[in-house]
Amino acid sequence: MKTFKLIIEYDGSFFYGWQRQPDRPTVQGEIETALSRMLNQQVSIHGAGRTDAGVHAFGQAASFTSGTKIPPHQIQKGLNSLIKKPVVIHSCTIVHGSFHARYSAVSKEYHYHILNRELPCALYRNYQWHVPCLLDIDVMNACCRVITGYHDFKSFENTGSPRSHTCRKITRARVITGSRDRVVIEISGSGFLKNMVRNLAGTMVMAGRNKISIPEFEAILAAKDRRKAGVTAPAHGLFLVKVVY
Amino acid sequence: MKTFKLIIEYDGSFFYGWQRQPDRPTVQGEIETALSRMLNQQVSIHGAGRTDAGVHAFGQAASFTSGTKIPPHQIQKGLNSLIKKPVVIHSCTIVHGSFHARYSAVSKEYHYHILNRELPCALYRNYQWHVPCLLDIDVMNACCRVITGYHDFKSFENTGSPRSHTCRKITRARVITGSRDRVVIEISGSGFLKNMVRNLAGTMVMAGRNKISIPEFEAILAAKDRRKAGVTAPAHGLFLVKVVY
Repeated sequence: MKTFKLIIEYDGSFFYGWQRQPDRPTVQGEIETALSRMLNQQVSIHGAGRTDAGVHAFGQAASFTSGTKIPPHQIQKGLNSLIKKPVVIHSCTIVHGSFHARYSAVSKEYHYHILNRELPCALYRNYQWHVPCLLDIDVMNACCRVITGYHDFKSFENTGSPRSHTCRKITRARVITGSRDRVVIEISGSGFLKNMVRNLAGTMVMAGRNKISIPEFEAILAAKDRRKAGVTAPAHGLFLVKVVY
Repeated sequence: MKTFKLIIEYDGSFFYGWQRQPDRPTVQGEIETALSRMLNQQVSIHGAGRTDAGVHAFGQAASFTSGTKIPPHQIQKGLNSLIKKPVVIHSCTIVHGSFHARYSAVSKEYHYHILNRELPCALYRNYQWHVPCLLDIDVMNACCRVITGYHDFKSFENTGSPRSHTCRKITRARVITGSRDRVVIEISGSGFLKNMVRNLAGTMVMAGRNKISIPEFEAILAAKDRRKAGVTAPAHGLFLVKVVY
């Protein structure tokens, strides 16, 4: 048996999230169906992160095992030709047998895209959250400094996924502005709780709107209570950019 | 009677182009329907450029006349609330009675977006042309220098629109590269023939792929013959960025 690693890009607008579901298009489901057909065996893949419906990925990672003799670059080509939905396999490589896309991950990078202007959004509607109130980028970057490091992120976790504890390490966080009123929150960390980036983005936007102060943001983190934090930012602004091993 | 000027953003994916058509969603049709309802009179608008189906706009301009007493910023708000499709009115202002969005335009700026990588495109599929062969950006910029200035662009015109002659002035043209394998052709000019930017983009991509040389590109321009030029690049990579008056 060999272990394979896939790097995957997808448009979350077309899927009910990463995780396989009966009778609904999911990214895992599409890839498993195509892989099983190509390798003529039932194949299960493990994703590095189970992105929600609407969440996009430039560089999701997944792993699977198979005894196939088909070389990995042919598997990549075959998947890209078999999958008709907006999923692109960037690479397929053979990795060490101990590799697991989820458990071997050292860190992940997420970007959250915001259109920050009064007027609504005609273009790129599926790829950004429209926030009509002017955001104070300095305040949002101060929030980034608060969350950087090892913290208990219970206040930013939605329930529903098993985990042994709620402490995670954020290695890098910053907010940048781009052209055409684009604001991007970039967050890298060793691991993320359910909806953690979207809950951080929603709460950081409240801080950027001066609805909460930096000490209040610190207090929300310290409270370890989901009810203290802000809204969950919508899924379609979120991109899983890369997974580091 | 007063003359009004609108600045309009839209996602071309949702429309059969700018120009009104019976029983099909078009940008002009959506705006005229909403305006006529709001002003309680039949209103016709004139667009600066009649973009094709799939072509996007950050800053299309249009004009109309009306005796309405509704102030222009209320017209803007009303349109943005009445139109449910991805059209956003950036501004509505009262202008001089001699103003006409098409005939008063001094220049227009178009951007053509290309995803230049071997792998197909999962994200932003409606907003870029996927060109899998590596493009030589220097060669494409040399083409930009060839077209800059006053030339007869008959080789880059598709038939179908009335015009007195086929000479146009390109004031600025360049090709830039962006993040994630994005290539953008930026072209500004006094006016454009039917499909001219898409035909220029298609032919410049051939030059970027070294399928035609710079002297051959010059010969295509000099030939004044549509059959000499390259393919018409697809509509969904094209953005009307702004109209200058």
